[in-house]
Amino acid sequence: MMTEKIKVGIVGYGNLGKGTELAIAKNKDMELAAVFTRRSPESITLMTPGVSVYSSDEAEKFAGKIDVMILCGGSATDLPEMGPRYAALFNTIDSFDTHAKIPEYFNAVNEAAEKSGHTSIISVGWDPGLFSLNRAYGDAILPDGTSYTFWGRGVSQGHSDAIRRVEGVRDARQYTIPVEGAMSSVRSGERPSLTTREKHTRECFVVAEEGADLSRIEKEIKTMPNYFDEYDTTVHFISEEEMRKNHSGLPHAGFVFRSGSTGNGNNHVIEYSLKLDSNPEFTSSVLVCYARAAYRMNLAGQNGAKTVLDVAPALLSAKSGEQLRAELL
Amino acid sequence: MMTEKIKVGIVGYGNLGKGTELAIAKNKDMELAAVFTRRSPESITLMTPGVSVYSSDEAEKFAGKIDVMILCGGSATDLPEMGPRYAALFNTIDSFDTHAKIPEYFNAVNEAAEKSGHTSIISVGWDPGLFSLNRAYGDAILPDGTSYTFWGRGVSQGHSDAIRRVEGVRDARQYTIPVEGAMSSVRSGERPSLTTREKHTRECFVVAEEGADLSRIEKEIKTMPNYFDEYDTTVHFISEEEMRKNHSGLPHAGFVFRSGSTGNGNNHVIEYSLKLDSNPEFTSSVLVCYARAAYRMNLAGQNGAKTVLDVAPALLSAKSGEQLRAELL
Repeated sequence: MMTEKIKVGIVGYGNLGKGTELAIAKNKDMELAAVFTRRSPESITLMTPGVSVYSSDEAEKFAGKIDVMILCGGSATDLPEMGPRYAALFNTIDSFDTHAKIPEYFNAVNEAAEKSGHTSIISVGWDPGLFSLNRAYGDAILPDGTSYTFWGRGVSQGHSDAIRRVEGVRDARQYTIPVEGAMSSVRSGERPSLTTREKHTRECFVVAEEGADLSRIEKEIKTMPNYFDEYDTTVHFISEEEMRKNHSGLPHAGFVFRSGSTGNGNNHVIEYSLKLDSNPEFTSSVLVCYARAAYRMNLAGQNGAKTVLDVAPALLSAKSGEQLRAELL
Repeated sequence: MMTEKIKVGIVGYGNLGKGTELAIAKNKDMELAAVFTRRSPESITLMTPGVSVYSSDEAEKFAGKIDVMILCGGSATDLPEMGPRYAALFNTIDSFDTHAKIPEYFNAVNEAAEKSGHTSIISVGWDPGLFSLNRAYGDAILPDGTSYTFWGRGVSQGHSDAIRRVEGVRDARQYTIPVEGAMSSVRSGERPSLTTREKHTRECFVVAEEGADLSRIEKEIKTMPNYFDEYDTTVHFISEEEMRKNHSGLPHAGFVFRSGSTGNGNNHVIEYSLKLDSNPEFTSSVLVCYARAAYRMNLAGQNGAKTVLDVAPALLSAKSGEQLRAELL
């Protein structure tokens, strides 16, 4: 029997949208149905032959023709509007990552998805996403314990953007770096209390405008509230050429630990880590396997907004239950 | 509102049963209802005040009075009989770990559980269990990839028992040790092909009977089929006192890696690891949070045999969906 492929749409064709297109190609039970953009559709050339780009204004016409829509917009301004709007028309996946606003966003998407009978999995990716899974598993398995999350070494796009807004800065790349000593302490099982400054340092590579006041730029970066003031920050001024040569990738990494005790003081440490050459390509690989789950949950009548915590692992796999039990259990 | 606690029973009171008793005490929404044993119930004193020990012949009388029964028997001879028998009477959790026989065991338990309307989660623990989860997540996220599992450094009870069966051996402890170089190679993302011998070594501590032929014992161990012949094995003869002093614990550890590529050759490595002071206490902590899930899945009408791959992570937690989204997502 030839089963039909899951038809996936992409909304937004930036780094994440392109990564999603590449990830769909790696999954034989899925196909890219269409890409939607707010830019001029003619300005975009896809990598997948035979697939068209449409204006996002036309998305409505595809209701019923696309099984899952992957929303590749940003969390600050795109998703709060896109999430509920698309959940009214399609099953959706997004990577909403403003942690503090997740409950509010969940409710807005849930209302739209429940009303229309769709399934929308929000906040998918690695953090929130795979790291959330590990925090939840760890918390449930070792209730008498402490969780720790470290990020890096990797490029933080939010922090890089913040530096670019400083006067006299032409380009910037910010690396978040976990403090090795703090990680060793956690790994040893001693469950330390760690301040923000003790967990991460920040390293900035900056291309300045010609003639700009470098010491003023450095000071503005290091004292920037929320972004840098609570961290030990290093600033390196480099040439445009060096930026292009050494800092054009978007690598990232991170760690989740659960350290806890059982019985009469036996200690256990669970460690989960990622080392990623390309943050957007990895994130979109996670989005795509959750698209499979959203499609299946919708077929099973499980409507409304969901998070990775609501999704049974088997739903992510193209393999059958029998295959999973025989090969991976 | 006072919600009633989940009533958990334990069948079998060895290391795993004792660990389960300790783990239940760490979870405020659960209580130990009773312990069942094939030994004489009077010979067992529980740590939990007010709870009784019964003969396993009496278990039937508790049908409807215990929400979930945790089966702490061994996989070789206990569970193949216990699994289906208890699934006919209770929701159950077990740690069946004979990988090759899981499909057959699943079917037997599934038949009993479906018929009686119970939910039975089989093969729970860390391998199979948490490691299976990580193999499945990794396989789904990075379909173009390779998975690796390493065990140790830790005590293998099966291998220790095998050595104890050698003539002239009074006591033995076998440590499984992952090969550092092999792990580094996997961690680097190069996706090596590794033979059994290249992945693990085995270190044995043996107390011999007085006057036994040590070189014969060493040779018998090192050439033992299935257990040691495919590994580089070291044998140390030690005194009974040294055994008691340095090898009385049951620590274990292990690693699951998924190394894979996306797009045009970007590599990613996912690493999951455990470092456990007490293998049975950690394993039973996993069993206990899956008991919560079995209870909930049964209330939701999801009957039959399940594995960890069928269980949504949120079902393991005593926290509500709102709490999980706000605190852990």
